[in-house]
Amino acid sequence: MRVAIIGTGLIGTSIALALRERGSDVWLADSDPAAARLAADLGAGEPLPQTLPAPADVVVIAVPPAAVAATLAAAQARGLARCYTDVASVKQLPVTQARARGCDMTSYVPGHPMAGREKHGPAAARADLFLGRTWALCPAPETSQAATDTVTALVRECGAVPLHAEAAAHDRWVALVSHAPHLVAAAMAARLEGAPTAALDLAGQGLRDVTRIAAGDSGLWTQIVLANALPVAEVLAAVAADLAEAARVLSMPGGQDEGLKSLAALLEQGQAGAARIPGKHGGAPREFTAVQVVIPDQPGELARLFEASGQAGVNIEDVRIEHSPGLPVGVAELSVRPAEASMLLDALEAGGWPVRR
Amino acid sequence: MRVAIIGTGLIGTSIALALRERGSDVWLADSDPAAARLAADLGAGEPLPQTLPAPADVVVIAVPPAAVAATLAAAQARGLARCYTDVASVKQLPVTQARARGCDMTSYVPGHPMAGREKHGPAAARADLFLGRTWALCPAPETSQAATDTVTALVRECGAVPLHAEAAAHDRWVALVSHAPHLVAAAMAARLEGAPTAALDLAGQGLRDVTRIAAGDSGLWTQIVLANALPVAEVLAAVAADLAEAARVLSMPGGQDEGLKSLAALLEQGQAGAARIPGKHGGAPREFTAVQVVIPDQPGELARLFEASGQAGVNIEDVRIEHSPGLPVGVAELSVRPAEASMLLDALEAGGWPVRR
Repeated sequence: MRVAIIGTGLIGTSIALALRERGSDVWLADSDPAAARLAADLGAGEPLPQTLPAPADVVVIAVPPAAVAATLAAAQARGLARCYTDVASVKQLPVTQARARGCDMTSYVPGHPMAGREKHGPAAARADLFLGRTWALCPAPETSQAATDTVTALVRECGAVPLHAEAAAHDRWVALVSHAPHLVAAAMAARLEGAPTAALDLAGQGLRDVTRIAAGDSGLWTQIVLANALPVAEVLAAVAADLAEAARVLSMPGGQDEGLKSLAALLEQGQAGAARIPGKHGGAPREFTAVQVVIPDQPGELARLFEASGQAGVNIEDVRIEHSPGLPVGVAELSVRPAEASMLLDALEAGGWPVRR
Repeated sequence: MRVAIIGTGLIGTSIALALRERGSDVWLADSDPAAARLAADLGAGEPLPQTLPAPADVVVIAVPPAAVAATLAAAQARGLARCYTDVASVKQLPVTQARARGCDMTSYVPGHPMAGREKHGPAAARADLFLGRTWALCPAPETSQAATDTVTALVRECGAVPLHAEAAAHDRWVALVSHAPHLVAAAMAARLEGAPTAALDLAGQGLRDVTRIAAGDSGLWTQIVLANALPVAEVLAAVAADLAEAARVLSMPGGQDEGLKSLAALLEQGQAGAARIPGKHGGAPREFTAVQVVIPDQPGELARLFEASGQAGVNIEDVRIEHSPGLPVGVAELSVRPAEASMLLDALEAGGWPVRR
């Protein structure tokens, strides 16, 4: 493929690297010439000349949501490519703005790869960023089948799994599974800012997990949620109402009975919702069995553990290491297919590992 | 030590197993005789007879918060031990109720191990459950130093790190770092219950992390938050207010400027709060560098990877495997000390691993 990337941040440069690995010709441009140069130095492609000998197959517009439409209009005016896509994490805003600017909508396939990192800029780019990730494509009613096919092929070249969706539905979905959870994590984490250090000493893995994404780039996330304001507001209002109601029943003197009913309902709804999130391989999160092994906290121990697992023919689907201050051992929790758990336990026990059944 | 455990659920049986591994004599009792028998069959100790030849060193009361005081009063009436502790996740309620019942407060050391699992019952018990975990002890003003010393020794025998705190402070702290986060995760997860499946297909690791603890036992958590109602209500009210305010500014027509300021402030506060949570080894969460390696999703590959790391003399502090549906490879993210990251990258690259710098 012949592809021009406009915007060589984390996502644009990662797409360029992925396409270069598959032998595509890639040209790079950025409003910051240093960023485009850095991406080129990283092997992501060549600088985009003022005119190409022939139009590229695709221009990928990897700029913030509010800048997509203007960038698309300019690229189409130059006749840069046969078709165009973008990677903004909201889709209605750029589509509406592109239509309002009179862009050619037949050649524009709005897109959104579900991949990212807590770092940004071309230096953080990785060719493998999209491996196995969902990449939403939201063709407008005017979008031609040829353009959709070409951009779908580009998505597959990056190793991602295309998912076609309508722009408004996409925005509601990402509000629910990405944008609102980010603000919920931030609102919980915000409570820790002024907390006594001793309180944080009592923190466990649960708090770390709930608040982890709150560490992300606050400037970028402000832009993202503003660009998807109404769907995000709807989810947040519902979460806020549930939490305010929980606070209310907990504050009522003698309200144990009502409180019990209302809190139990919320916790049960939470359980049911959490159980719906697909895990690795698209299965339910509980499709794997956890096997716990105590391991010394030193180089090579995990290698020995995984070697023993591999020799037993058991594939470790996921691993989480729990280790707390003050002790020279940790607990490795290995997720395996339920049918393989006892095989793994037998093998580890035979190898002298301290497992608990 | 000579210890009687009353309540052989997950926590009680795990304490029993930990103490037995260190050679203690342990007696077991439970209001459900089958639970006590199962714990005994697991090697956790002997059934508690009606009278002991001599009082035990400690009775550990491992029953729900609201049942602690009655259990303590009954055990003291039998003269079961020289001192008493409990493991309930709130501390003011049992202390107040014990005092109201006229329990001997000099021999009672209220406690709370910061450890648990998403499973419950004696069969889920593990001798290593408390390894390296913080275990709060909240002696009352009346508690004798001898009792506190004995229970502190028991905590250390279980491999935990004792932390002395005042009961009211303890309850405020766990409301902040454990009970409120649980309800926040549940309120976010509850929004997923009726969501379209396609929305969940867009879910990434962020959503999984934010909602993971919502999968816990809803009945137990209802009891826990009710027993710590006011401190939990205070945190939830603050989180709800922040989220309601975010929803309000996002819903305002033309409110982009005010929205930008208010959202950016919340996100920045969240960043600052998340950065205060101690990570593994008690350090800040960012003290480690992440090294990413693409690995085939088959038995033995992780073993090879960890073996290479061990041979390079690099200790993997944590590992997270990212793997999405449809592809035969995953990405292992290894957390290492920053000084060791380039050593690890060199070693893995020399071994032919696809790393990205």
